[in-house]
Order: sequence, then structure tokens, then C-alpha cells
Amino acid sequence: MSANLRDAVYLYDTTLRDGTQGEGISLSVEDKLALLRFLDTFGVAYVEGGWPGSNPKDLEFFRRAGDVPLQRARLAAFGSTRRPGSACDDDPNLAALLEAGTPVVTLFGKSWDLHVTQALRTSLEENLAMIRESVAHMAGQGREVVYDAEHFFDGYLRNPEYAWATLRAAREGGARWIVLCDTNGGTLPHEIERITAEVARRLDVPLGIHCHNDSGVAVANSLAAVRAGARQVQGTINGLGERTGNADLVTILPNLALKLGYRLVPEPQMERLQELSRTVSERVNRPPDPFHPFVGESAFAHKGGIHVSAVRRQPETYEHVPPERVGNRRRVLVSELSGASNVLYKAREYGLELDPETPVVRDLLRHVKELEHQGYHFEAGEASFELLLRRALGLVPPFFTLEGFRLTVAKGGPDGTPGPDAEATIRLRVGSERIHTAASGNGPVNALDHALRKALLPVYPTLASFRLVDYKVRVLDGQAGTAARVRVLIETAADSTRWGTVGVSTNIIEASWLALVDSVEYGLMKMQVERPGNWAVSTG
Amino acid sequence: MSANLRDAVYLYDTTLRDGTQGEGISLSVEDKLALLRFLDTFGVAYVEGGWPGSNPKDLEFFRRAGDVPLQRARLAAFGSTRRPGSACDDDPNLAALLEAGTPVVTLFGKSWDLHVTQALRTSLEENLAMIRESVAHMAGQGREVVYDAEHFFDGYLRNPEYAWATLRAAREGGARWIVLCDTNGGTLPHEIERITAEVARRLDVPLGIHCHNDSGVAVANSLAAVRAGARQVQGTINGLGERTGNADLVTILPNLALKLGYRLVPEPQMERLQELSRTVSERVNRPPDPFHPFVGESAFAHKGGIHVSAVRRQPETYEHVPPERVGNRRRVLVSELSGASNVLYKAREYGLELDPETPVVRDLLRHVKELEHQGYHFEAGEASFELLLRRALGLVPPFFTLEGFRLTVAKGGPDGTPGPDAEATIRLRVGSERIHTAASGNGPVNALDHALRKALLPVYPTLASFRLVDYKVRVLDGQAGTAARVRVLIETAADSTRWGTVGVSTNIIEASWLALVDSVEYGLMKMQVERPGNWAVSTG
Repeated sequence: MSANLRDAVYLYDTTLRDGTQGEGISLSVEDKLALLRFLDTFGVAYVEGGWPGSNPKDLEFFRRAGDVPLQRARLAAFGSTRRPGSACDDDPNLAALLEAGTPVVTLFGKSWDLHVTQALRTSLEENLAMIRESVAHMAGQGREVVYDAEHFFDGYLRNPEYAWATLRAAREGGARWIVLCDTNGGTLPHEIERITAEVARRLDVPLGIHCHNDSGVAVANSLAAVRAGARQVQGTINGLGERTGNADLVTILPNLALKLGYRLVPEPQMERLQELSRTVSERVNRPPDPFHPFVGESAFAHKGGIHVSAVRRQPETYEHVPPERVGNRRRVLVSELSGASNVLYKAREYGLELDPETPVVRDLLRHVKELEHQGYHFEAGEASFELLLRRALGLVPPFFTLEGFRLTVAKGGPDGTPGPDAEATIRLRVGSERIHTAASGNGPVNALDHALRKALLPVYPTLASFRLVDYKVRVLDGQAGTAARVRVLIETAADSTRWGTVGVSTNIIEASWLALVDSVEYGLMKMQVERPGNWAVSTG
Repeated sequence: MSANLRDAVYLYDTTLRDGTQGEGISLSVEDKLALLRFLDTFGVAYVEGGWPGSNPKDLEFFRRAGDVPLQRARLAAFGSTRRPGSACDDDPNLAALLEAGTPVVTLFGKSWDLHVTQALRTSLEENLAMIRESVAHMAGQGREVVYDAEHFFDGYLRNPEYAWATLRAAREGGARWIVLCDTNGGTLPHEIERITAEVARRLDVPLGIHCHNDSGVAVANSLAAVRAGARQVQGTINGLGERTGNADLVTILPNLALKLGYRLVPEPQMERLQELSRTVSERVNRPPDPFHPFVGESAFAHKGGIHVSAVRRQPETYEHVPPERVGNRRRVLVSELSGASNVLYKAREYGLELDPETPVVRDLLRHVKELEHQGYHFEAGEASFELLLRRALGLVPPFFTLEGFRLTVAKGGPDGTPGPDAEATIRLRVGSERIHTAASGNGPVNALDHALRKALLPVYPTLASFRLVDYKVRVLDGQAGTAARVRVLIETAADSTRWGTVGVSTNIIEASWLALVDSVEYGLMKMQVERPGNWAVSTG
């Protein structure tokens, strides 16, 4: 292993396009724009945003992406070569690609003769013309053209002459990059390495690699191609993608950077690798994989006493890379101790020095354990965790006391009114004042949210600046059917701050209520809003 | 790729031992005995059952495993070499290994000098004696000894002389196999291949390989070692194991057998690969990974119109191996990017031949597109999709007509009753009969579910056999805060069938209701329940 810096390798992320081909994956335009921003700051060289010819959502994305100021990333639009037997100027797909207005256009074409005759149903000659002319058309419009040679390895193994001819066509058209694709994911690393090296020797265009994980070796295939000379690696965050997924950039990146010494992203960004992986998991609503290499919750988890003290003395004896280099952390699975020390560590972050020997702190530690067992997860709901600590220590003023709420959702009333509609009534006290009010909403949680704000706004006008910016629901034990426990995460923003709160219950209304109340109380606490009356006396 | 039969490769399964080191994994003695039987029938050459010196559960397992009649597998007990500075005859760990009464004993020893001095805290010479004497002790008792050279690759890269000396010690002791272990999982395939080849050239004992997945390349590392001469592959089913897991035999096996032509298990057993993977998932209570190479639910799932018709004409154009060879099957997904041809293909699966030129089918296709735009996602809710098609064609009897429902969730009633609680009232018609009933539940959706069943059960007693087995919620546009649209997926089971339904709304109650109604109607339709009265006349 060399720790020296060697060549640069360009990351080409296609999470927004090929990643969304994964079963059960969908990203809204908002999601895609947010991920584009993250990938750009992170230092990815190319971000493939979508296939403008294929659907209106991708068209909207490219329209709005034009307003996103990018630091490093170049945005790419993806599409096929022109149709058989037509001119580039008349091709609607190529027109849509140009209209997307991206600096980079990625064109895919067929390298496998069987696909040309069976799937495209055209002649081998016409396919070469399609590649050459389409690439030239895009290059002529000032685009940086990435040519994705679909099914290249399968084609090369069956008809190397023809596969070669397609690459030459792309080169003649003026492709800036030629990317060898293992589209069906069936090729093994030794073949990827051999074939990529052969192509690299004979072709004077920079090479890229695009792998799928059908054989479980997409990461190794990408590494093998880089060793053989490829300098662009296409893949997705967390390996999202069709069938078994694309090559996982989250795993490829630290292997190339930390073990093989290539330059890929700015050094400090590597420490945001786990954050990047989690952000994508959140956006596609897939729980993060605890066993994910480098970034998973279990990736640096150690069991057993002797082993653990050895890890502490000399981490390299049991850890292949330092966890903090990839934004992860070592975990010790002797659960009790690690729980307490983590809680104390967090408390210190909030400026609270806790003595684990006092009864109040011991109770608190027990309570945290129990909540985690119930399904609380404070990583995305850290404001709730801070409130929990401060409440236990009597440090949170009782901004209000709930007396009760009632929520009604009706579909088709007795009078024939159409539904569904939701109404919430709420009764609470602020100091000695009783407030009883009602509000309707777009769904039950929205109604409850409206009623709570309506009740509190006259007393705490600052609430007007709080915006709920994200609302997430995860069912924790789906096997319990409609009686399952759910975890609700709410993200709230005010001015430039954001905070996340969490609630867990078998009742989604209750879970949402818990997260809502924390959202309001945390905001009021942080803004140092004084509660009317002498709250300091009563610590209800 | 060679399809010819080449050498035999011996699978060594350590799911029962190293697999249970995975976070959250535990297997009862019953589980382990059941898996031993499955692995034996399947054709695995060696099954490592546990570490008899480490815990009473493993001792019990070996006692009872003696009564399991094995066809092919040889059972192995796992343990360390003797303690420093003692004799083999006095070593409790070696005694426990012998007592396990297995034909095979696997001993692990240290290959990395740093571990000898830092973790074992003994001299380099004494470690060599420990290896040689312990192996000889077991071989002298008639055991087939597998020697696991822990941290071999890390040790070899830092102090090759010493790493070599440890292998020689095991050879001198009489080891039948020497297994090179990448214990920390940090080594990359090209190094595994180079080092294994060097050892194979210089050592006259058959080699094995044992990899961990910390770098995401454990499968590729195992394949590389076999190419370099290793003839035993250690791993676990589904890659279970400490941190990011062990090498996954489920992925390694078909790569070696179907792509590289090695003999591993009897030919027909390969078709039970998915069953093996699922059985282990069941036993360790982890949901099967849909994206698992070869055996995952999504591994042969195809999207997209043109693509799908090509797969059907010529499967090898889009599938790296035939799914049935590994016990899997091809699936066609109904998804966002689907065109008319996918809808028509799906309809055909349901026995419906649709003519895309008729107005009703054109309207249907437009409607599907619109629902997808709203956030419907039929992949996990295919029963809803089938209902949609059949309803459009007037093929679904109106089992009931909803007149209205009202749902109440209250926390802290005026009378001081504790909350939260949920109550649903429901009014519906079945034929000319009006039903008006109420039920409570564990949360609002559960209450609605109870009320609907209560209302319908007297008319459709078969409903009693329907069980809701999964309930999932996904917020589609979290940025809208509590007013976000949500998608609810419900999975229902009755007897041996399962079906998934979907509902989308800004109101989670409405979304759940839509999925619930589909769940009930689909079940009744499939069970060919006759609706009371003459539904065939009215197609409401």
C-alpha cells in the first residue's frame, strides 16, 4: 500500500440518475437539488442529474439546477445516441439534452453487437454512425462529452473487433472521456483489469469505469479498472441502483484515497463521508446499513474485553483505517459503559458536566437506555436529547402545560360534506392562563401543529419565525401491522438555526405530538424566551 | 470465462461461529443444529460449529451435533493455540476442543509479530512453539487440523520473514490445511492475489482463504485467492460477521461455480441457494436483503419498456446468469419510468389482454402515470395496481360502499381520562344493508383497521384469516412539514399468499384507509368471495 499521492481520479456520481433506477427509490426535485449541493461541496467532479428526455421531473430538475452555484462539480445530463436512420438535428432526445443546458453531456451507446441487432434493431454500421455523429453533435455545441460504452465488457468478450470500433467512433466524434460499462454486472475483477489495460494501451482518450454489483464485486471491479488506467469512476452513493445496485462510491473513495494514494476529493471532505452516506439514506428513506464498509454503525464496533483494550492501545492492530478519517467512530459493544460515557460526552458538548455517581445522572442514564430500547434514535433528533438532559436536571422552564387535545378526522360527514378533513382542539395552561382553541389542517398532524401554534403564538410571538422544514415517519416494527410503533422526526428552522426532534409511540399522533412539543420547547429555550410568570419556582 | 469443470474448491462455512460475532446476531442451539443439517445437504465441505472453550452453548451444540447424521459435511470445532508458557496436555482450551469430538479441529494462531508481542504478550519464538505443538497435539489425536493464520496479510506486509515462520510451524505440526486470514479486512484483491500466489509457490500444504468485508471487497478477495491457488474458502452465509461481516459464501459460490467453472457443491443444490440464504435470514431474524447479488428479490428485477421486451426475447442480453440457476426468478417492475408496454405486460400476468388502442385502456394508462406523479409507487403495492386495472375494466365487485368514517384521538379528556387513545366510527353499505359500528385501537390507523374489520366480518367471515404483516409510511415531501404527502404501504397475508397495497394522501389517515380498503378488497377478490346481492349488475 502506498500512502504517496499519485494521480488524480475523477468521481462521477450518478445517484440522481442511475441510483433512482433502484427498486423502491425515488427522489423529488427538491431532494435532487439538495444532493447536488452536497455532492458539489463534498468535491465530486461530475454529477449526473438525470435523463432530460425521459420524464418531466428531470426536465424541471435541470431548469432549476441552473440556479445552483456550483463550486467544483460539473453537471451532466444523460441520454442515448440519436435514433437509427435519422439526423442528429431532428432527434428529440438530443434536443432535450442540449436544452438541459449542462456543461457536460453523457451519451450512451451500444458496444455489444447482439444489442445492436436485437435491442436497437439496426445495422452494426448504422450504430457506429449514431455514436460518432451524436458525440460530434454535442461536442460541436461546446459540451464536454462523456461516452458511456454500454455492455462494453460483454461485447468485448464476444466480438472484440466490433466493441473496438464503437470506441473509435466515440473518439472520432470528439469524446472527452470514454467510459467502459459492465452494464449487466457479470464481469469479474481479473477480466475488468485485463480488458481495461488493453483498451488503455491502445486508446488515447481518458478512460472511465461504470460497474454494477450483480456479482457482488462492483467495488473491486472499479478498483481494478483504476489500477489498469481508468481515471474516472462512475457510481452512486451507497451503491443505489437497478437490481443489486451500482458501484458504491462511498466504499470506493476511501479505498482509492487512503489505501492506494489517489487524489479524489479535498482532504477534509473525506471526514464527511459518513454524513454524505446518511444524507442520501435519509433522502431515499432507506435505513442506513449498519454493516456498510467504512461508514456503517458497526464498521468499527469491537466486542470483548482484551480485544478492546488492545484496540485502545494500538488501533492499527484491529482497524484497517482510522474511523475518524471517514467520519465514523469506534464503538465498544460492552454496552452499559459505552452508553454512559457517550451520554457524558454529549452532555459536555452542551456545556453540562455530569457526575455519573449522582442519583439524578444514574436515573438519567437508565432512562436514555430505556428510550433507545423503545426505538428512540437521537442522531437526527439531538434537540430532543438535549432537552431530555436539561429536563432531568430541572433546566428547562415549563413553557406550557398540556391539559388535553382531541383530534378528529372525518370522511363523509352525516350531512354529506366531503372529506377527509382534520380538526384539532387543544387545552393548555401558560402560567395561570388557560387557553382552549381549535384549528383545522391538511391531515391530522398538520391540524395539531396549527392548533398548538395558535394557542401559543399570543404568548410567544417568536414562534412565528419557526418553520417545520422536514417531517419523517419510520415504522419500527412493521410486522405488528397497523399497531406498529412509529418514530417521527421533525426538523425545525428559525433564522439560520435548525434543530431536530423525535417522538416514538404506537400512535402516530402521539409520536408526532412529542416531536412537535420538543420542537417548540427547544426553540423557545434556545432563543432564551422568558416564560411569563415565575417559572423558575415550579419545575413541573 | 470458462464453463469447463476445473479443480474442486472446498467451502468452509463459519456462519455458526464467526457469523454469530455480527452485531445483533444470535443463534440458539436448535437454530445451529437446523442450519448444520441444511448446510450438509446443500453440500458444504466443512461446517465450523463453534468455539467449545468459549461458552456453554457451544459445548451443548457439539454434544448434540454428534447425533446429527451428516452426508457430506465434516464438522469443525474452533479454538486458539495453547497458552504461552504451558504444555498442550494442560491446556483447557485444547482439552475442550478434543472433547467436542469433531473430525476437524481449526486452530488459529498469530502471524503478525505486533500481535504476538502486544496482544499475546509473549515472545516470537514461543508463539512458533505454540503453533507447532498445538497443531501436532490435535493431529496426534487423529484430528484433521485446519490452521487459521490470523492477520496473515497484515503480518506478511510488515514482517514477511516472521509470517512465513508461523506457516512453517503449522506445517511442521502436521496441518492438513493452512488458511490465510485477512482478519481486519483491510487488504485489497491485487495484494491478496499476489501474496497468496507467493505462498502457494513455496508451501506444499493446501491453502485456504478467510476474508472480512471491511474494505467492501471480501468476495473479490476470496475469488482472487482461489485464482492464486487457494482451494478452501471460508465464509458465512449472507456475509454475517463482526463489524462489516465475513466473506459471503452465497455470492462467492455462484461466481466460482457458474463463471469460473470450479466444482463446489452438487449441481442441483445450487438451485437452493436462495432458500439457503433465506433460511439463515429467518434464523438470525434479519430481513433478507433485496439487493443481495444472485439471490435478492431485486437481483433480476427489470424496469423500463424496451428493455423488458428485450429481456424476454433474449435473457442473456440483460442477465449475467439465469436466475433459476440460483433459485431466483425474473421480475418485471411497475414503476415510475414504466411505459405502456410494462402495464400491458403486467396485465397479461394477471390474465388480462389489453388493447392499448381502446379508449378505456388509454385512459387507464394516463391514470397510472398521474398516480405515479402523485407519489403512488406500485412496486411494493402491486395488489393495488392489479385492483386499479380490474376496477377500470369493471371487473371488481363492489364488496362494500363507504358512507363515512370519523376518527378521534384524544389526550387528556375533560374528565381527566388518560390518553392517548383512538376511536373510529364507520358507516358503510353492503348491498342494501347499512352497517354503522365503532372500534378503538392502538393508534388511529389501528382503530380504523379494527372498525373496518368489525363492520365487514359478519358479511365476509373469510376476513378473519387476513393478517396485516407489514405497515410502512414514507413522507414524500418532508419539506412541506406536517402538511407533507405520505405514502402508506400495507402487506397482508392469508394462508400462504401475501399481497401489498398502497395509498397516498397528505392525510396519513386517508392514505392508510386507501391501502386498507385495497388490502381487504384484493383479498376478497382473490378468494373469489361472492358479494351478497347482485353486484354483477351494478359496477359502482
